[in-house]
Amino acid sequence: MILPPLDDTSDPVQDLVRALVKLPSVGEKSARRIVQHLLTADPTFAEALGARIAALPRRVRRCEVCGTFTARVRCGPCADPGRLATVLCVVARPSDSDAIERTRAFRGRYHVLHALLDPLGGVGPAEFPLGALLARVRAEGVEEVIVATPPTVEGEATALYLAESLRAAGVQVSRIASGVPHGGDLEYTDPITLGRALEGRRTL
Amino acid sequence: MILPPLDDTSDPVQDLVRALVKLPSVGEKSARRIVQHLLTADPTFAEALGARIAALPRRVRRCEVCGTFTARVRCGPCADPGRLATVLCVVARPSDSDAIERTRAFRGRYHVLHALLDPLGGVGPAEFPLGALLARVRAEGVEEVIVATPPTVEGEATALYLAESLRAAGVQVSRIASGVPHGGDLEYTDPITLGRALEGRRTL
Repeated sequence: MILPPLDDTSDPVQDLVRALVKLPSVGEKSARRIVQHLLTADPTFAEALGARIAALPRRVRRCEVCGTFTARVRCGPCADPGRLATVLCVVARPSDSDAIERTRAFRGRYHVLHALLDPLGGVGPAEFPLGALLARVRAEGVEEVIVATPPTVEGEATALYLAESLRAAGVQVSRIASGVPHGGDLEYTDPITLGRALEGRRTL
Repeated sequence: MILPPLDDTSDPVQDLVRALVKLPSVGEKSARRIVQHLLTADPTFAEALGARIAALPRRVRRCEVCGTFTARVRCGPCADPGRLATVLCVVARPSDSDAIERTRAFRGRYHVLHALLDPLGGVGPAEFPLGALLARVRAEGVEEVIVATPPTVEGEATALYLAESLRAAGVQVSRIASGVPHGGDLEYTDPITLGRALEGRRTL
């Protein structure tokens, strides 16, 4: 239990501010502004928002195939018979596969790890959920795995580990490109990204 | 009704993101991060936070004396017999009197307008809650009113309007100082603030 149950003796404003600051990207000032807004808006807004937040964990489950968050047994892409089963895109989090889905550039299927290899953070090869991915690759006849973990230390470590394990299983493995983002300015691009952009250059 | 009632056919994640972006200082990206956090944290956190938000409007009322938000009939300062009744600090919002209270520099009482004079925004003299303030000033024997509305266009207009009305009622009226904030850099202070700092200079 992270928050104590509602208690009529505590100050309701302070109590909610303390709960809100536990959310990502909400500081003390934003929390106070949010509470002020909830108290000046129509009271049905706070009731409806509170009901949605409280109901979220029981309304959302993990897709039985790819593991993303969904309200159904299978998510949209997994329930779509038109998606290619031979190409599997592996991501760290549901928000990552959502972002790829918004590009409309990928017609294969997804696999959500809900983890990245991070031995110092307590996720070593023993804790990493490799088994489920290998089982899916074998059962579904996957030919290519696109590793779309983020270009961070943990994301790259995960990509190398997956590449090794999947190649041993006879699957082709690719990695999404890392480089200067669209609209980016070379002058303000960090040296690692710029180094990757050079390294990943393509013949025109 | 600002949000429709919970509906089992809508996507719970999208549905909550749409509700969260209505909050101040929460954009689409923060909303997605918050939902992601709620789905990966202990589910009791979402339940406890949702319950607090939903209960807020019925747990909080306006202080019967000053109008600030409180869980009781009278707020802390209004219930404290040690506070000076002769000095009244007028603020626009409850968060403003909270901020002044945190300075521990004020021992008088507060009056929360829940409004600023803003004729273009629909709050002209007819809509502005002047009556309650004048009644309090008369009933409580207030001798000085400190106008602590913000140094914005609406806050200054309100201050001038209050000064006029209160002086006519025989009360001394003062305005909080506007100038370069503590730790501020003159080079990066806007010209209006710097002009006010010069204008409000004090003899040393």
